[in-house]
Amino acid sequence: MISFESDYNNGCHEAILKRLIETNNECATGYGLDDYCTAAKEKIRLACGKPDADVFFLVGGTQTNATVIDAMLQSYQGVLAVETGHINVHESGAIEFGGHKVLTLPSHDGKMDSGELAQWLHDFYADPTYDHMVFPGIVYITQATEMGSVYSRAELQAISDICHRYELPLFIDGARLGYGLMAQGSDVSLEQLADLCDVFYIGGTKCGAYCGEAVVFPHHNAPAHFFTIVKQHGALMAKGRLLGIQFDTLMQDGLYFTLAGHAVQQAMRLRDAFVRKGYKMYSDSPTNQQFVLLDKATVERLEKDFVFEQWYPVGDMMNCRFVTSWATRPEDVDALIAAL
Amino acid sequence: MISFESDYNNGCHEAILKRLIETNNECATGYGLDDYCTAAKEKIRLACGKPDADVFFLVGGTQTNATVIDAMLQSYQGVLAVETGHINVHESGAIEFGGHKVLTLPSHDGKMDSGELAQWLHDFYADPTYDHMVFPGIVYITQATEMGSVYSRAELQAISDICHRYELPLFIDGARLGYGLMAQGSDVSLEQLADLCDVFYIGGTKCGAYCGEAVVFPHHNAPAHFFTIVKQHGALMAKGRLLGIQFDTLMQDGLYFTLAGHAVQQAMRLRDAFVRKGYKMYSDSPTNQQFVLLDKATVERLEKDFVFEQWYPVGDMMNCRFVTSWATRPEDVDALIAAL
Amino acid sequence: MISFESDYNNGCHEAILKRLIETNNECATGYGLDDYCTAAKEKIRLACGKPDADVFFLVGGTQTNATVIDAMLQSYQGVLAVETGHINVHESGAIEFGGHKVLTLPSHDGKMDSGELAQWLHDFYADPTYDHMVFPGIVYITQATEMGSVYSRAELQAISDICHRYELPLFIDGARLGYGLMAQGSDVSLEQLADLCDVFYIGGTKCGAYCGEAVVFPHHNAPAHFFTIVKQHGALMAKGRLLGIQFDTLMQDGLYFTLAGHAVQQAMRLRDAFVRKGYKMYSDSPTNQQFVLLDKATVERLEKDFVFEQWYPVGDMMNCRFVTSWATRPEDVDALIAAL
Amino acid sequence: MISFESDYNNGCHEAILKRLIETNNECATGYGLDDYCTAAKEKIRLACGKPDADVFFLVGGTQTNATVIDAMLQSYQGVLAVETGHINVHESGAIEFGGHKVLTLPSHDGKMDSGELAQWLHDFYADPTYDHMVFPGIVYITQATEMGSVYSRAELQAISDICHRYELPLFIDGARLGYGLMAQGSDVSLEQLADLCDVFYIGGTKCGAYCGEAVVFPHHNAPAHFFTIVKQHGALMAKGRLLGIQFDTLMQDGLYFTLAGHAVQQAMRLRDAFVRKGYKMYSDSPTNQQFVLLDKATVERLEKDFVFEQWYPVGDMMNCRFVTSWATRPEDVDALIAAL
Repeated sequence: MISFESDYNNGCHEAILKRLIETNNECATGYGLDDYCTAAKEKIRLACGKPDADVFFLVGGTQTNATVIDAMLQSYQGVLAVETGHINVHESGAIEFGGHKVLTLPSHDGKMDSGELAQWLHDFYADPTYDHMVFPGIVYITQATEMGSVYSRAELQAISDICHRYELPLFIDGARLGYGLMAQGSDVSLEQLADLCDVFYIGGTKCGAYCGEAVVFPHHNAPAHFFTIVKQHGALMAKGRLLGIQFDTLMQDGLYFTLAGHAVQQAMRLRDAFVRKGYKMYSDSPTNQQFVLLDKATVERLEKDFVFEQWYPVGDMMNCRFVTSWATRPEDVDALIAAL
Repeated sequence: MISFESDYNNGCHEAILKRLIETNNECATGYGLDDYCTAAKEKIRLACGKPDADVFFLVGGTQTNATVIDAMLQSYQGVLAVETGHINVHESGAIEFGGHKVLTLPSHDGKMDSGELAQWLHDFYADPTYDHMVFPGIVYITQATEMGSVYSRAELQAISDICHRYELPLFIDGARLGYGLMAQGSDVSLEQLADLCDVFYIGGTKCGAYCGEAVVFPHHNAPAHFFTIVKQHGALMAKGRLLGIQFDTLMQDGLYFTLAGHAVQQAMRLRDAFVRKGYKMYSDSPTNQQFVLLDKATVERLEKDFVFEQWYPVGDMMNCRFVTSWATRPEDVDALIAAL
Repeated sequence: MISFESDYNNGCHEAILKRLIETNNECATGYGLDDYCTAAKEKIRLACGKPDADVFFLVGGTQTNATVIDAMLQSYQGVLAVETGHINVHESGAIEFGGHKVLTLPSHDGKMDSGELAQWLHDFYADPTYDHMVFPGIVYITQATEMGSVYSRAELQAISDICHRYELPLFIDGARLGYGLMAQGSDVSLEQLADLCDVFYIGGTKCGAYCGEAVVFPHHNAPAHFFTIVKQHGALMAKGRLLGIQFDTLMQDGLYFTLAGHAVQQAMRLRDAFVRKGYKMYSDSPTNQQFVLLDKATVERLEKDFVFEQWYPVGDMMNCRFVTSWATRPEDVDALIAAL
Repeated sequence: MISFESDYNNGCHEAILKRLIETNNECATGYGLDDYCTAAKEKIRLACGKPDADVFFLVGGTQTNATVIDAMLQSYQGVLAVETGHINVHESGAIEFGGHKVLTLPSHDGKMDSGELAQWLHDFYADPTYDHMVFPGIVYITQATEMGSVYSRAELQAISDICHRYELPLFIDGARLGYGLMAQGSDVSLEQLADLCDVFYIGGTKCGAYCGEAVVFPHHNAPAHFFTIVKQHGALMAKGRLLGIQFDTLMQDGLYFTLAGHAVQQAMRLRDAFVRKGYKMYSDSPTNQQFVLLDKATVERLEKDFVFEQWYPVGDMMNCRFVTSWATRPEDVDALIAAL
C-alpha cells in the first residue's frame, strides 16, 4: 500500500534521526534551556529576518493554538476565525476549555476574507449592545489552510492592516507553513509573513519532524511569562532538546524549505495528472493537499493500492484528499498517476 | 563534568533509538491508532496483570496530571494531595487552569499519611457548611515521591481502603514509577499497585524514553471519551507512534525495570558512600534521588566536576540533590565517591 | 414618556412589595433554606404537576444559563443552540468561561428546527473524525424566544424526541416563560413543558419580580450537589428569602400567569393596531415583544413620547421593538395606538 | 427565639424598604445605567474622598470576589490570601473555577501578617524554579475578617507598602466593611482604606441591604471592560436599580455607618457581659461577631431561647459565634445577658 493519507504518518527526516543518534549520549539541561534549542532559535530568527524575535518550542498544533490564544487574550475576549478553522472544528474545544469563544466568519476555501473581517468588526462596534457580547481579541488564520489554499501577500497585508486598525494581534497557524511558503505561485516569504503578523508558528510535525511547533513572536513581543503559560498548558517538554535538535536540523541550510518544496512538487504532478485525465478537482490547491472528486468505482479501485481520505460526499461523487509530504517518493506518485 | 542533575537530561535508551531507526520509513496511522501503540498497550496490560486495562499515551507529566484529574473530577470537586505534591507546586497551576482546587494535606517526606487522609475526610463531612466548600473528588499520590520516598504495600492499601470507603478514585502519579517499583526494599509490585488504584501512569520521560507517559485505567474504567479529553488538553500526539515505539521497547523483556533497577543500584552505592563518609542525609531515600546536607566548602569543591541541584539551605548546610538514571555509569558514581 | 423599552424596567408587582413589607422584620435562615423558599418550591411543584421536582432559585438569567449548562455537561461536551440564542450572543461568553462551546444551528425566528437538529446530530456521528470535535451534550432552546416566537406543543415534542433518541438533556430557557405560556394561540401548558424537558426555569425578573429565576428539574433529576455548583458560580443569594418571597407570591393563585396574560393581551392590542394601520410587522409574534418596521420619520415622531428599542435597519426601515409587561397600562397602549 | 445567628437573616433596613416602595412604579433603564445607580455611585465617591473612583454594583460576595480577582489577574497568576480567607474556604472553589490558584499564608485571627507576606514574596522570587510555579498576582484580605478581627491603619499600610514594592494590587473584601470601619478602637477611615488599596467593596448584604456589594476602584483604575466581565460572570443584575436604590439609601446621611455602629455597640455590650460573667472569649473581636467558649450545659440552656452558631469544639468547650446586626434590638441583647 502506498499512502497519501496525511503528512504525519511517516517518522522524521533522516537528517533529524542522524542528529538524534549523534547527540543521544550528551547531557543537556531540561525545559528548552539547552544549547540545541538556543541554536535552533537563532537559526529561526535569522530565517525570519527578525533578530529580536522570541521563539518557543511546543509539541503539537492544538496545544500550540490553545496556549498562544490563551496567552494573548483577555478573559472577556474571543478569537476570530473562519468556520472551517482548525480551532473551530478539530480541537475538541481546546479554545473554549481555556475560557474563550471562537467567533466565526465564513470560510472561502479555508481562507478569511479581509472585507468580511472589516465588516464584522464594524458591525460589532456599531451594535449598541456590544458590552454584553464577547469582544474580538485576536485574529486567527492558517497558512496553508486546512483546505490546501494559501493567502497571497496582498491578502495577508489587507488582513494585517485591519488588525492594526482595530489593535488586534494577528496569529498565523503554521502547522503547514512550509507547504504554504513553498506553494506554487506563492508570493509570501517567511520574512514578509513575520512582518505582517504578531505571532505565528513553524510547523514541524507535518513538515519533517517527529513532533514540534516553533512559536515565533517576531517583534520581541511574547506575552509576559510565556514560559510559565506554556508549562501551565502542559506544553513544556522536559527533554526540550528533542525539539531543539529537530528544529536546528530543519533550519540548517534550508532543509525545511527543501522538504516542503519537494512535497509541493509531487502534489503538483498529481494535480496535473488528475486534471489531464479529466477528473474534477474540488478546489484549486497549490500546496501538498489535493482534493479531487472521484466516483464510487474509482474510489474502490484506488483503495486497493493506495491510502487516502474520503472527506465527504459531493452529490454522487466523493471528495477525496491526497496528501504528499517530504517522505513521498516520486515513484509513489508515478504509481498513482498510472492507476488513474 | 559528570551530571547528577536530573533523570531527564540524557537522550533515550539505545534500544529505543534502534527501534526508531528501524521503523522510521514505515507509514503509520496517527493519533495513537498505530500498531506500535497497540502492541505497547498489550505489553502494559500483561505487565500489570490487567487484561482489560484501558491504556493511553500522553507526552509529559504535567499534561498527564491535568488531563487525568480533569477527566475524573466533577466541576465542584477538587483533588487531595500533599503540600509538596508536584501538582501543587511545580505545574504552574495546570490543575486550577482546569477549574479545580488542590486540597492539601501535610507531606511526610513527600508522602500522604492515611490516618491524616481519613481525618481530613471525616472532618470535611462533619463540617455543617461543607456544601459551601470544594468537595474532595480524587486522591493524588506519587510513587516514588518528589522527595525520593516510596509507599509500602501496607501504606498504599490503607490509602486505597479509605478511598474506597469514601468512593474516591485513587490516582498514582508514576512519573518515576520505575524507580519506585525497583526501590530498595520495595514490597509493591506493578500488579499490586494496579490493583490498589483507579488510575496511574508509567513514566517514560524520566525512565529511559525521550518523552511519554502511559496512563493506565486498570479496571477498564477510563472515563467516557477520554481520547477526546486528551485532545482537548492538547495532549494528543499526531505521530503517536513515537510514544508507542518507545513504550513497546521499554516493556519488552522488562527493560523498563532493568533500567530503573540500575539507577537505584547506583543511587544506593552513592548513599552508602555518603553515610560511610559521615555525611548527613536529609532523608532516607531508597530510590534514584538522594538528598544530602553539604557544607559550603564541599558544595564548591564538588561543583567543579559534578552537576547537581542545591535545593534549599538547612541551617548552615545546603540540602543537595543527586539523581541517578538509566544513563548513569558506575564509573561516574566511582568518581563522585572518590571526590567526597 | 411612556416606556415600551423592555420588560425589566419597572420595579416589582405590588403584591410582591406587600409581602416584602410584611415579612421584613422576620428572621430567616440564609441560602434558600428558609420557609418562604420551601413554600415557593412546593407551589412550583404543584403548578408543574411534578411532586418530585427539584427546584432552586437563582438571581438572573445569564447566571442561570451558565450554572445549569455547566452542571449538566461533561468537560468535553458543548451545548446546541440556535445562532440567535441568548447564550450565543448576549452573555459575554459566560458559557465559554465555563469551558464549553456553543454549537450553533440556524435560527428560524429564534426557534430551532427539529429536522435540522436531527440532521446535525446524524452528521456529527457520521463524521469519522468526531472524536476530535466537541460532543453535543445538551440542547438549549428558549420559550418564548428572543424574537418573541413560541414553540408549539408538537414542535417541543419533536425536539424532545430527538433529545431522547440521542440521550441529550433538553434545557428550556424560560426567562420569558410566562409570556410563552400565555402566548396567543399557545397549546403548551406548564405541565406539558415540564414533561418534555429535563430542566427549565421560570423567569421572574422579566415577569413581575425584581429578580430571580426558578430552576426546575422536573423529574427529581438535579445534578449531584447542584447547591454547591450554584455557590461556585456566585449564584447563591445569601438572603435567599428575597427570591422565595417573590416566587411564593407569583405562584399564589396563578398571579404569574395573570401578569403574563395581561402583557400578552396588551401586546396583541398593539399588534392589531399596527397591522390595521398598515405597518409591516417584522415577525408574527404572539407574545409580549412586538417587532415592527418603521420609517425614519415615524421613529422620530414616536420617540418624542415613547421609549422603544431600534434593533437594526432592514432596508430603508428600522426594525423596532415594543415590549409590554405586567406593568403596561391599557391607557399607555391606547396612547401609542393613537399616536400611530 | 432571638437570633444572633448571622448578619444576613433579617430583611433590609426600613429606609431602604421605604425607597423601594416610593420608586416602584417608576421606569428605569436596566443593567445599572439608571439614575439611582448614578446617584449612589456619586455618594460612594464622596464618602471615599475619591472623585474619580470607578464604582460597580454586584449582587453577592462570592460573586464579587471571583469577578474582581479574575478581572485583575493574568492567566498564570494566583491570589495570595490567608488560609481562613473566605475565598479559600467557603466559596466552593469559585476562584479555581476561574482558573486561578489561591496561594495561602498563615491566618492570625483571620489576618495576614505583613512580615510573612514579605517573606513569602522574597522566597518565591528566590526560588530558582519559580517559572514552574503560580505567580502571585494580587493580595486579598478581608476587613473585618471572618474571625471578627480588624486591621489597624499601620497594618494596612505595611501590607500596602509590600504590595507596591512587588507591583501587586491589594484587594480588600469588605463584605463586613461597615463593621470593620466602626469597630471598637478602629483607626482606619473609609478614605484611608481607599487610599491604601487598589480595589475594595462596600458590603451591602450583611450591613442593612437585601443584597448588593459596591465594588470601588478608587484610583479610576477599573480593568478595561469590567462591565463585560461582570456580565460574563453572571453578576450583572438586569434591574440594577434594586442595587442602586439600596446603596443610594445606605450612603445617604451616613446611614451605612450608623447601622454598623449600632451593631458593634450591641456586640460590645455582649462581649463585656461575657467577660464580666467569667466566660472565656475565643478571640478578642472589636466587631459585630463575638466568639465565646461555652460548655455543653450552657449551650443547651441558651439554645432554648437563642439562635447562634456552634463553630467547632475547643477541648471540652464549644466555640460559639454570636452575631449582631443593624437589626439587633438592645432588648435582645439584654435578654441574652440576663440568660448568661
